[in-house]
Parts: sequence; C-alpha cells; structure tokens
Amino acid sequence: MSNNDQFAPILVADVGGTNARFAIVESLDLANGDATFSYEKKLQSNDFENFEAVLAAYLESIPVAPTKACFALAGPKKNNQVYLTNLGWVLDCESVSNRFGFAETGFINDFAALAYASPYVDGTKNLTVKAGTPLANANIAVLGPGTGFGAAALIRNQSLITVLSCEAGHTNLAPQSEHELALLQALRSQHERVSIEHVLCGKGLVNLYQAVCLVEGAPVVSITPDAITASALNNSDRIAKITLNTFCNWLGSVAGDLALSFNAASGVVLGGGILPRFTELLLNSEFSERFNAKGKMAHFNQDIPVTLITQDNIPLLGAAACMQQKLY
Amino acid sequence: MSNNDQFAPILVADVGGTNARFAIVESLDLANGDATFSYEKKLQSNDFENFEAVLAAYLESIPVAPTKACFALAGPKKNNQVYLTNLGWVLDCESVSNRFGFAETGFINDFAALAYASPYVDGTKNLTVKAGTPLANANIAVLGPGTGFGAAALIRNQSLITVLSCEAGHTNLAPQSEHELALLQALRSQHERVSIEHVLCGKGLVNLYQAVCLVEGAPVVSITPDAITASALNNSDRIAKITLNTFCNWLGSVAGDLALSFNAASGVVLGGGILPRFTELLLNSEFSERFNAKGKMAHFNQDIPVTLITQDNIPLLGAAACMQQKLY
Repeated sequence: MSNNDQFAPILVADVGGTNARFAIVESLDLANGDATFSYEKKLQSNDFENFEAVLAAYLESIPVAPTKACFALAGPKKNNQVYLTNLGWVLDCESVSNRFGFAETGFINDFAALAYASPYVDGTKNLTVKAGTPLANANIAVLGPGTGFGAAALIRNQSLITVLSCEAGHTNLAPQSEHELALLQALRSQHERVSIEHVLCGKGLVNLYQAVCLVEGAPVVSITPDAITASALNNSDRIAKITLNTFCNWLGSVAGDLALSFNAASGVVLGGGILPRFTELLLNSEFSERFNAKGKMAHFNQDIPVTLITQDNIPLLGAAACMQQKLY
Repeated sequence: MSNNDQFAPILVADVGGTNARFAIVESLDLANGDATFSYEKKLQSNDFENFEAVLAAYLESIPVAPTKACFALAGPKKNNQVYLTNLGWVLDCESVSNRFGFAETGFINDFAALAYASPYVDGTKNLTVKAGTPLANANIAVLGPGTGFGAAALIRNQSLITVLSCEAGHTNLAPQSEHELALLQALRSQHERVSIEHVLCGKGLVNLYQAVCLVEGAPVVSITPDAITASALNNSDRIAKITLNTFCNWLGSVAGDLALSFNAASGVVLGGGILPRFTELLLNSEFSERFNAKGKMAHFNQDIPVTLITQDNIPLLGAAACMQQKLY
C-alpha cells in the first residue's frame, strides 16, 4: 500500500456514539508501524440519521473515490449486520458495499480495530500506565471501559497473526479485595447478575457509585457518569472519589485477569472513551498492584507493560492494518 | 500424511502425571477428523525417572524409528523447557530433540493439544453435556479441572487457524449465586487470593469441601479429593455431595465465562482427569443453566454445545494435528 500507483484509495473509518472519523490511507508500512492518512475528518455522528448518511457526507467532501473500505464500528456484528448500539443505527454490510460501490469492504468491531493496531501503540506517544518487559511477538490484550466494556486480543503464534473479538465484558465480575467483595454484595442487591460491564463502563460508574453509597451507609442518589467524574476530580464529593478510585483498582484486577486469559506477554493496551478523562487518578490508583497480584502468575503479569491509548487515530490504523491482512 | 511413502513415521505422545501414552501416526485426514495410530502404548509415568527414560522405553519397544515427534505435556513451557509439574520432571526441548535424533519436534501444553483436536471431538463418541447449535468454523474453548485448571482455545478467523494457550485457571474466581458468594467468603478466610484453580481442580475439591464445612457450620476436616468423590457418589457424606454438586455448578459459570472470553461459538470441550469420574452427577447438576445464565449474552451461550472428552486418544490426535499445521 506504500505505492499509490498500485493501489486504489482505501477508506478507513472509526464510528462511535459521538464521533465518526474518516480518512484515506496514503501509505501503510506495518513493519515500522507507520501510516499516513489524508482527508482525515471528524463528523458528529448525531448530526446524521444513519450510517449511510454520514458516510455519504464524508465521501462527497473529498475529491477521491475509494474502492476499498474498512470500518471500525462501536457495536456487535451478527448475520452481516452491525448494531451501533449507542446511536440506534443498524448497518447492513452488503447494502453499504453495494450502494457505495466498494470492491472490498471490512466491517469490524472497534476493539478488534484496536487489536490490529496494538503492536503500533507507542508508549511514548500514548500513556504508559505500567512499565514492563514485553516478550516479542506474543499476544496483546486490548480492553477498556466506554459505553460498554470492550475487549479483544491480538493472537500471534509463529508467523500466524489473528484477532480474537470477544464478549469478555459480559463475564462474571470477580472481587479481589474485601472492599470489592462488599461492593459486589451491594451490587447484587440491585442487579440480578453482576458482570464486568455492570461496573466498568459509563453506566457502570453510576452502579458503582450507588454500591459505594450502600457500603458507606450513605443515601443512594441518582447521578450521571459525568457528574461522578467531575465531582471526584474537583474533590467536592467523597463518594465520587471512592467510586473513581475503586473503578481504577477493579479495572486493574480485570485487566490482569484478561492478560492471563489471552496470554498477553507482549502487552495490554487500554482503550475506550472513559479513562482519558482521569489519567492522573488512574496513575495514582492501585491499578498496577492489582494487575500484578495474581499469585503463582504474578511474575508473568509483572513483566507485562500496560499502555493507555491517547492518540486519536489508532482505530483508523487498526482498520488499515486489518484491510491489509484481509481478516475483516 | 495419508501416504506413508512420502512421510517418515511421526511419533505423538501425551504425558501426564499418571500415564504416558505414545503412538505412531499411520494416517491423518483432518478434513474428516480421521486418524489411525499404530504401536499405541500406555506406560506408567511414575515407573520412570524422567521424560527421556519413558520416551526411550517406548522407542525401544517398537520396530520403527520416528523422525518427527509432537509431545502434549501436562505442564508449562518456558525458555524451551517444559515443567511436568505433577512428576517434578524438567524437560529440555533441545536435549530431547538431539538425543533422539528427531528432525522436527513439537512440545505443547496438554490443553493446547486438546484445542488442536477440538474440531474432531465427536459428541456421539464422547459425552454431550449440553446440546447446542454450533456456528461452523468459529472458535472452540477447551477447559477443565485436573491437577490444575487447564484452558486453551482454537481460534479461527477466515482461513486462519491457531491455538491460544493460556493461564485462565489463575484468574480471579467470580461468584454467580448467593451460595457461591458465601463460599467465596469462606475460601477467602483460608486463602489470601482465590483463583479459579483454588476451587476447580483436584486440590480445589478439598478447598471447596472445607469451605462448604464452614458455610454449613460443620467442623473443617482433612480429606482427599478421592475420598470426597467416593463418599459423594455412595451418598455417605452430605458435605461431599454438596461439594461435588457446587463444583459442577461453578464449573458451569466459569465455562460460560470462558466461552464469552474466547468467543467460542463453535463449542466448548471439557477435558482434564476429574470430570469423567462423576459424569452422572455433572449431567444432573445445574452446569447448563449456569453456563447459559449470562444476561444479555444468554442467547449466545444457549447455542453453544458442551462436550466432555471421554475418548482416550484425543490428545494424541491433537499432537498430530499440531504437527501437521506446524504450529508447535
């Protein structure tokens, strides 16, 4: 793809509940993790009625006509349809390919896109949450809280590379401390079943806040995720502060577990929209201790570096890498 | 490999704490899941001093000299050495290859071998624990209690097939019911940290038995895994019966979680030495209900079939499949 004479323009996109980012791949050198994009644009998803409308708007605004496209989408794919949960959009893969005349299209989950990009997430350009000694060419786990809790893994075995998209956010939530055990009991009094996503996502912040209220003997109030974050950061609400700190600690436990389940000796990459809002609190939390505290496997987890994505165009890089490897 | 004129004899082996099984691959047709072995032999691991001794004994007993070998081994591999935990044996991969003059050798974990064999585990020749409607060519999770708790997955993405070996047994144990929550609290009073393997393996049976004693207000006694199984099966010990039933139920929760983490839409295969000892109790437990009870993802788990391996030579088939795919 580094020679534009040989390749038709390739469109990549990253469509989430808030923003829809688009770009044309100018060059892609995966050996060095270098990509150049042109016509990079960010549109507001909510300004459009559906996926085809925002895609049409972007394509009308640029002077090239891409013939291949790979879309990273915040939602599950089933029977060749993608549900953009946050926007209430349903996208039919075949209709999109036909209407826009793409010869080749890939529709992948947003965390799968992060997994494809994960070898190129540079700790110096993003945020190193925990330093480590990564094993070369081993697996990388990608996970994080956003609208839901996303997870995927880059699986590398000899020369084979593939991505595991999964639903780990819906697995049962395990407590790792006495405090978490008490919170789990409080959560169970409000929810029939408690999965990772019941705590580690935007709505989960609210569930966790209310559980902290119960454990602290405070009245359970209605509150938004934004209000929790804001009042924790300006120190105006003790419960909010405990909530955010517990959120980071519990994420450490869960990330450490997923590192073991995905054998992620090359690293863990944190994604999703929530963590970049309170990076200092994350760094000052017990995230790393919790990540490492895995008994017999503590030595394994200690060596794993954890990096938080703060660069904007990582999903676009992932979509481009996926298109190059033709694994959409 | 179906044409013996083209291939030198291939040795496959499955070495665990009790038995060391060996065979020569006569033919292997993975498209149909058919394998024929010759010179299949079972030796007692404990009769030998180390891995090289049992391997030498087998090779001396057969009239062919294999030039390729793939070994499925019950233990972790690190820095080209395998630790056969149960036997206290350390095996150096290079020394073994050199001493026995193999041109090609594979040393893989026993659950990785099961993952390679998993597409060929026939529900009619093994035990169907839960029927389902598997998706074709998707992932398969392999897991189960033995000396430890093993887990691996066959990952299939388009035409790519690979195996994820992992340490999921060391992740935190999550409770899915009030009873499990009470037991987790009891376990935490005895162990600093409670992982899946603290409950779901041979020694775990003892930990769980003692936790049931605490929850039931009975005195905590010393007991062996075999005594627990025996007295549960002959109805002579109420606590043992509760223990075994809880063991099966909790395994259902954990297996359902791993199905989500590995996106195992093609199936879950149960391995390890413990479950075949109480299959009727497993079938009469709440394993399947617990496996399916995953909130929003219940529809996904409902479709996944679960099969317990009861055929003896599945690890040998896995070792042969791994050798053919050259992913050791």
